[in-house]
Amino acid sequence: MDKLTHLDATGAAQMVDVSAKADTVREAVAEGVIAMAPTVIAAIRAGDIRKGDVLGTARIAGIMAAKQTSALIPLCHPLPIASVSVDFEYLETGVRVETCVRTNGKTGVEMEALTAASVALLTIYDMAKALDKGMVIGPVRLLAKSGGKSGDWTAG
Amino acid sequence: MDKLTHLDATGAAQMVDVSAKADTVREAVAEGVIAMAPTVIAAIRAGDIRKGDVLGTARIAGIMAAKQTSALIPLCHPLPIASVSVDFEYLETGVRVETCVRTNGKTGVEMEALTAASVALLTIYDMAKALDKGMVIGPVRLLAKSGGKSGDWTAG
Amino acid sequence: MDKLTHLDATGAAQMVDVSAKADTVREAVAEGVIAMAPTVIAAIRAGDIRKGDVLGTARIAGIMAAKQTSALIPLCHPLPIASVSVDFEYLETGVRVETCVRTNGKTGVEMEALTAASVALLTIYDMAKALDKGMVIGPVRLLAKSGGKSGDWTAG
Amino acid sequence: MDKLTHLDATGAAQMVDVSAKADTVREAVAEGVIAMAPTVIAAIRAGDIRKGDVLGTARIAGIMAAKQTSALIPLCHPLPIASVSVDFEYLETGVRVETCVRTNGKTGVEMEALTAASVALLTIYDMAKALDKGMVIGPVRLLAKSGGKSGDWTAG
Amino acid sequence: MDKLTHLDATGAAQMVDVSAKADTVREAVAEGVIAMAPTVIAAIRAGDIRKGDVLGTARIAGIMAAKQTSALIPLCHPLPIASVSVDFEYLETGVRVETCVRTNGKTGVEMEALTAASVALLTIYDMAKALDKGMVIGPVRLLAKSGGKSGDWTAG
Amino acid sequence: MDKLTHLDATGAAQMVDVSAKADTVREAVAEGVIAMAPTVIAAIRAGDIRKGDVLGTARIAGIMAAKQTSALIPLCHPLPIASVSVDFEYLETGVRVETCVRTNGKTGVEMEALTAASVALLTIYDMAKALDKGMVIGPVRLLAKSGGKSGDWTAG
Repeated sequence: MDKLTHLDATGAAQMVDVSAKADTVREAVAEGVIAMAPTVIAAIRAGDIRKGDVLGTARIAGIMAAKQTSALIPLCHPLPIASVSVDFEYLETGVRVETCVRTNGKTGVEMEALTAASVALLTIYDMAKALDKGMVIGPVRLLAKSGGKSGDWTAG
Repeated sequence: MDKLTHLDATGAAQMVDVSAKADTVREAVAEGVIAMAPTVIAAIRAGDIRKGDVLGTARIAGIMAAKQTSALIPLCHPLPIASVSVDFEYLETGVRVETCVRTNGKTGVEMEALTAASVALLTIYDMAKALDKGMVIGPVRLLAKSGGKSGDWTAG
Repeated sequence: MDKLTHLDATGAAQMVDVSAKADTVREAVAEGVIAMAPTVIAAIRAGDIRKGDVLGTARIAGIMAAKQTSALIPLCHPLPIASVSVDFEYLETGVRVETCVRTNGKTGVEMEALTAASVALLTIYDMAKALDKGMVIGPVRLLAKSGGKSGDWTAG
Repeated sequence: MDKLTHLDATGAAQMVDVSAKADTVREAVAEGVIAMAPTVIAAIRAGDIRKGDVLGTARIAGIMAAKQTSALIPLCHPLPIASVSVDFEYLETGVRVETCVRTNGKTGVEMEALTAASVALLTIYDMAKALDKGMVIGPVRLLAKSGGKSGDWTAG
Repeated sequence: MDKLTHLDATGAAQMVDVSAKADTVREAVAEGVIAMAPTVIAAIRAGDIRKGDVLGTARIAGIMAAKQTSALIPLCHPLPIASVSVDFEYLETGVRVETCVRTNGKTGVEMEALTAASVALLTIYDMAKALDKGMVIGPVRLLAKSGGKSGDWTAG
Repeated sequence: MDKLTHLDATGAAQMVDVSAKADTVREAVAEGVIAMAPTVIAAIRAGDIRKGDVLGTARIAGIMAAKQTSALIPLCHPLPIASVSVDFEYLETGVRVETCVRTNGKTGVEMEALTAASVALLTIYDMAKALDKGMVIGPVRLLAKSGGKSGDWTAG
């Protein structure tokens, strides 16, 4: 599992061929966290941020970014995304995002779920950075995927 | 410092007006890490990844993402980006990216540096995920910014 | 018909899941109008506009915008657009556009047809605005849709 | 005022040259309306729409569209947008949007303000269309512009 | 073969309707050349270019451009691209690129293969232009296509 | 002239820093040719192409592509493009395009002029390919550039 045959002798980058794969329902769930000072969390909760409604804006940014994933990640396949959800939860030390993306396509949507989470967190950073430039993004990681030939996977 | 006046009574999202700000040279430096199993690091170093040259591809993805930042982050201003660099370093536990973005504009380039780092790390995930879906992205954070009226800032 | 069950308790925006829907041929027809002074209509007809051929340019803009619909409208699904047509008609009081979009996909193409019409009209405004900034866009509306589980619909 | 010299003999479309123009602060204000049944207005006000928070989503869509204007409108110049605001007002017969865009550039931002208004209204249509496909967009029009050599303009 | 029925009386541009066509595996292979002085070829081979690794960057640019083809070419249909490869070969007089694109869709991928080749060559020009502005791109041409109702085709 | 100092020891790709350069008026002129059978030229002239008005569509595609250059070419700087023109001429053996791009910025617009020419020619190929898949694009080359510290340049 920790080694894969090269597709060509030179190791050059390429989009792996998925034309022979079947269209099946595939789902991926990712999560991410942004850590910040308690005063910043309080300001976000109170809507007390100069740029406006933070989590509502970050949700839209995450959803729209999921649809741009194949334009951002060079070797990622374009997929007909069937749904995206982006949900937030306040932590004592920041904000947690959980994203879920579904498609009916030939490859998985792990990258779409991770991209949605990353861009949602970057948007929170952008909106709150006038208060605190020391916010830290991460961990961002895949929680689970299902569908496709390689089968289901859940984070340990 | 932990409170900002609302620009309107409703708290609606908006792009903050920068039309009266001066064009000055501004720079931002960000970093990020992706953690992975030693076998995956070894595969990346050996060029032993099915999708091809990992860090070279991630570098281009990061540079191109920096230029798309204002299209991804809803309230971020478009800026004439003057330079972007994306550098990698192997750690024992993964890969570290450091990005530096410079502009001659009316607002800072923190978001561009953070976006470049995030997308570079997402690209590494994409290229190595056939080996290990449990890779974790983060911490991603700003290291320093300079230029503009708000002055210089360095991570504590 | 005037009420829909919330998908979650918070009312947060999300892309509705269409992964279980069938791919069927769907079509939408939209129309729009831009009102302008008779002298401007005459200038457009005569090709007497500094920026060039107005309706030919607006047609291409509308077609290309239809393909960008899911990148512009946050909760709109990306669809494999199968055809777009954008046709114009001179009125005594301006120009009328009629668009028709077809797909073989899981959701309708109403938004694509409306977006094509809107961007075509905005392009006419752009090209003629040196003559008349008082041009008015609208009404823009759906004329008909067919295909999909919700069935056919025609404007009353 | 109702006639302009052709820039070339053939009437071919082209981007008008603005390289000799000065960078000045320019502002444009536009408005638009979407008409809908009272039950739909009530559903939007109550947050009773399956796709989520309607006006918050439409605001972000309008702001992001303003930044994409030069990619949508063929002969429109790219501009360093300095601010965008998108505000809504409930009418008895629908929703009214007012947009304001500012730049420090070589041409006006009328198209950015009109594009923001149009895409905000299209987003409202998208989110409420499960309740009412007969909603009508328009009039969408420029209310005022200021700055630049051609001077100020206000709708009559 | 040298004449086609007009779809409408006016000759207006439109996206041809492919909604009734079947999804089949389709492939296109294109090639292109950029001619340059021997000293420039030597600099590229030696990695002696100020902007960095030329062919690695051009490969990624070509792959990403293939995915943007329907956004660049007005009447081109969006397609679920299943694979893209971009390979280079040094000639005595320059560099040759060969691209191969595959899809499982309703129309061919000739434009995607040609666009990938063109953008890869433009990227080489960009990276080496500090050394030689007189580089010449072309010929760029289709070598072969297969799949779809119109059948296979190979350059004579 | 045939050697440039590496900016870093590793040869990694990067956007060259232009933040210290002055904004000056810069212009670039490029040309390109597409060769095709006489019957295809005749069909284009007669408007006898199923997809519609060929050169009008190709002109808009070229202009819009010029504005997307920095999104397509990885290390190319975003520039405030001040004008783009795309002109065509019938040859006995095909069609010739000449593009002219102007900016008031920190780097030249050679890539914008070459990209506009390439995409205009690709659009001609797309629209006429039902008649002739053997059309050949090129030579595409820079004719002249002016402005900037490196001074004027004209093709030999």
